[in-house]
Order: sequence, then C-alpha cells, then structure tokens
Amino acid sequence: MPNPTAAMLVIGDEILSGRTRDANVAHLAAALNEKGIDLHEARIVRDAEDAIIAALDSLRTRYTHVFTSGGIGPTHDDVTADAVARAFGVPIEVRADARAILASYYAGTSRELNEARLRMARVPDGAVLIDNPVSGAPGFSMGNVHVMAGVPEIFQAMLEGLLARLIGGRRLIDHTVHVALPEGEVAERLRRLSERHPAVSIGSYPVGRGGVLGCTLVLRSQDPEHLAAARTDLGRVLEELRPPS
Amino acid sequence: MPNPTAAMLVIGDEILSGRTRDANVAHLAAALNEKGIDLHEARIVRDAEDAIIAALDSLRTRYTHVFTSGGIGPTHDDVTADAVARAFGVPIEVRADARAILASYYAGTSRELNEARLRMARVPDGAVLIDNPVSGAPGFSMGNVHVMAGVPEIFQAMLEGLLARLIGGRRLIDHTVHVALPEGEVAERLRRLSERHPAVSIGSYPVGRGGVLGCTLVLRSQDPEHLAAARTDLGRVLEELRPPS
Repeated sequence: MPNPTAAMLVIGDEILSGRTRDANVAHLAAALNEKGIDLHEARIVRDAEDAIIAALDSLRTRYTHVFTSGGIGPTHDDVTADAVARAFGVPIEVRADARAILASYYAGTSRELNEARLRMARVPDGAVLIDNPVSGAPGFSMGNVHVMAGVPEIFQAMLEGLLARLIGGRRLIDHTVHVALPEGEVAERLRRLSERHPAVSIGSYPVGRGGVLGCTLVLRSQDPEHLAAARTDLGRVLEELRPPS
Repeated sequence: MPNPTAAMLVIGDEILSGRTRDANVAHLAAALNEKGIDLHEARIVRDAEDAIIAALDSLRTRYTHVFTSGGIGPTHDDVTADAVARAFGVPIEVRADARAILASYYAGTSRELNEARLRMARVPDGAVLIDNPVSGAPGFSMGNVHVMAGVPEIFQAMLEGLLARLIGGRRLIDHTVHVALPEGEVAERLRRLSERHPAVSIGSYPVGRGGVLGCTLVLRSQDPEHLAAARTDLGRVLEELRPPS
C-alpha cells in the first residue's frame, strides 16, 4: 500500500515579508518522514482568507492530509479558522468544548478569558479539536485539514498529539555519503546508478563554495534491500573514481 | 500604480524531507520588500517535472514575477530547466551563449566542461540568461519566470543581478513595537485600530512561551503619512492600557 501523502500550508505575512523565518516546514517534514507520511509540497500564503481558501481547495483534494500553521490566535490578523470554515462551507462559532478548555486554562493563570481570547474557541462545525498542552487554545482537524498554531513550540506540541492518531506508512530509510569530488565529476555515473536502482531516489547536493569542494549524496528508499543494493553499487562507482595510489 | 507582485517556487526534495532547511524564501522576501515587489506566496515542491510544471502554470499567470530556486545543477535530479521548457511549450537544448560562459568559467579551473556539466548550458528557447558570478553556470528568465540556483550563496548573487533589471514599486515601510502584554489583552483595541487605519497592515506576533510574555506589533504601509498616523494612534492605545502608577 502506498504511503499517505501530505501538504503543508504556512499562513503568515511575517514569513513573506522576510521578518520571520519559518521553522515549521522543516519540523513537520522530519516528523512526517518518521511516521511514513510523504510530504509532497508546502505553501506559504498571506493572512488573507481568500489566499488561504484557494490553497486549501487545491491541496485538500490532492493529498491525504493538509497541515497548517499560523493564524489561530486572538488578534484581528488571525483568520485561519474562518477561512477553513468557508473552504468547507460550514458555519463557525464559539464551541462549548473549546470554550471549556480555554476557561479551564485561563482559570489557572492571572489572565481572564475575555472576548478576544474567546475568538480562539471559534471552531468550524464538525471539526475535531487538537490538544494544545502549551497555551490552552486548541487547534482542530476539519476533515483532512489539520489546523495548528504558528509559534514553533506550540506547533510541535500540537503535532505530536495529532500524529499519534494518524495512520502512517513505511518510513523512508536513507543513507548519506560525502564525496570529495564536485558534482560535475560524478554526475554521469550517478545518472546511470539512478537508472539501475529505480526504487531508490538518489539526490546530489553540492557542498562548499559554488559546489567546488564536493557533494553530498543521499540515497532514499522504502525498501532496505533496494537501498543496500544501491549502496553497494555506489561504493563500486566511487571506487572507480578514486585516482590510483 | 500598484506594486508588481511575485511568488517564489523552491524546488527540492531535500527541503521536503527535512534534511535541509530553506534559506532562499527569507532572503528573497527581504530583497523584494526593498525593491517594492510584493511577495504573495511561496511554494516548495519536489524535484519532479510534473510538480514543477503544475506550480509554474498556477503561479506565472497570477503574478508579475515567479522566482525559482533549485534544480539547475549537473546531476540527474536537476530537472528544473526541462520543466520550465515544458511549461512554456518551447524546445530546450545546449545554447551557444550559455556554453561559452561555462567554457570560459571552466578554462579558469582545474576541472573540465564534461557532458554532465554541459547540461547546465541547456536553456529553454527564448530565455534570457541570469549571470552567476559565483560558479559560472547561468540561471535564466523565461518570460516572467526567473530560474536560479538553490545554493544560497549562488541564489543571492544571481538575484542581485536580476533585480537590478526588474522594475520595482513603492517599498513597504514598517514600524515595530514590543508590548509587555499578552496578545489577548491588546487584541480588541488592535482590531479597532486596524479598522481606523485601513491603509496600514497591523500584524501581531506572540513573544515568549505560549504568548504569555508579550507581543510584537508590526505596522506596515506604503504611505509614510498613514503609517505615522497609525503609530500615533497606537501610542495612545498602549497608553490607555498602562496601569496607573
């Protein structure tokens, strides 16, 4: 059975303005890889309902899961929950279960559950809440769209709980080799190696200024035997390239 | 006149596998902001022609410019140039001008312009080359799609030359205020402030664990007078929130 597939949707003007550097794509990518869910693409859009809806419409029909980060706080620029409700064509209002979670969380603080914070209990009809062990306000899963916070610490905590209830697949296993030759010297042999091992994806990444110093080769496969065969073959190929001593 | 708009397309399995963290979106975002080109979205896709073409088809019709990074090296997993040619429906082959650039570059090194490296001279018909002062192999602009390398140092050098020949717009100016109150305490007033200043975008970003410690407010506008008015207004709002001493 093929692995489940996924896309990530990062919501936030602050990333597109260059003010903040996204950290959630890299974290999600590593976590999904562990879980055997294949991350096919990621998008970053502005805090604008129309942009979020267009991306959701495109992604949620194409992949098993869509993970979002950002835009679920108490301020006016947090529009993700409304956009998700509109994308699914369902109503959104303050929900009793989410409100109870917030009430209980703020009861343990010196802060009060005011009207602005109550916005964080607005959840589209039919969504399942995602636990937020860091700061109370829950995320939610609406169909195959999983809506989480943008603050990396909260995103990661929410994701951990969420992933525990999703079905995974076969983890990609990989093998990394550092080669002290520029890409251009190994490219032809790598191409042939790649053709001989269609079940193994072989990536080549230049290392050092302009790729002059060397390259990192990454072999990835779901099948340990195919990976082992490609590793042995690569070893032979690199041996051929070594100048005789 | 409204600013030109843009999207970024990052091409690379290594980002989606979590192996490498993208640095080019943040760099492009800051550079475009300086130039007065509005970055509306960014996408990260795999090293797969179909995925690249689907993203290009969607982005190049919607924005003034599309900037890509990654997938233009000499190895088999570098498929960006072919994907761009297919997206535009034009032939691609080794072009004399690109080949001459590579020949001249490699003549100054101990390396030779072999067949694999010649792949980097394959340019879609009708494209304009983008100079690569770091490692020779050029990028190219095909229509409104600007194809650059993924290695950050090379991406940045290519972008600098490219941006010099693009027409910019009005730079967004911004003003950042750190507030020692959690978002939930300022949210209602911020919403009203935002309604009073429609020409100013007001972003709020939690700071510290779970947003407990405070928040950063970012005011952005193309118009210095509108920004100044919103700043003054924000100052009053924050003054009201301060407890009497």
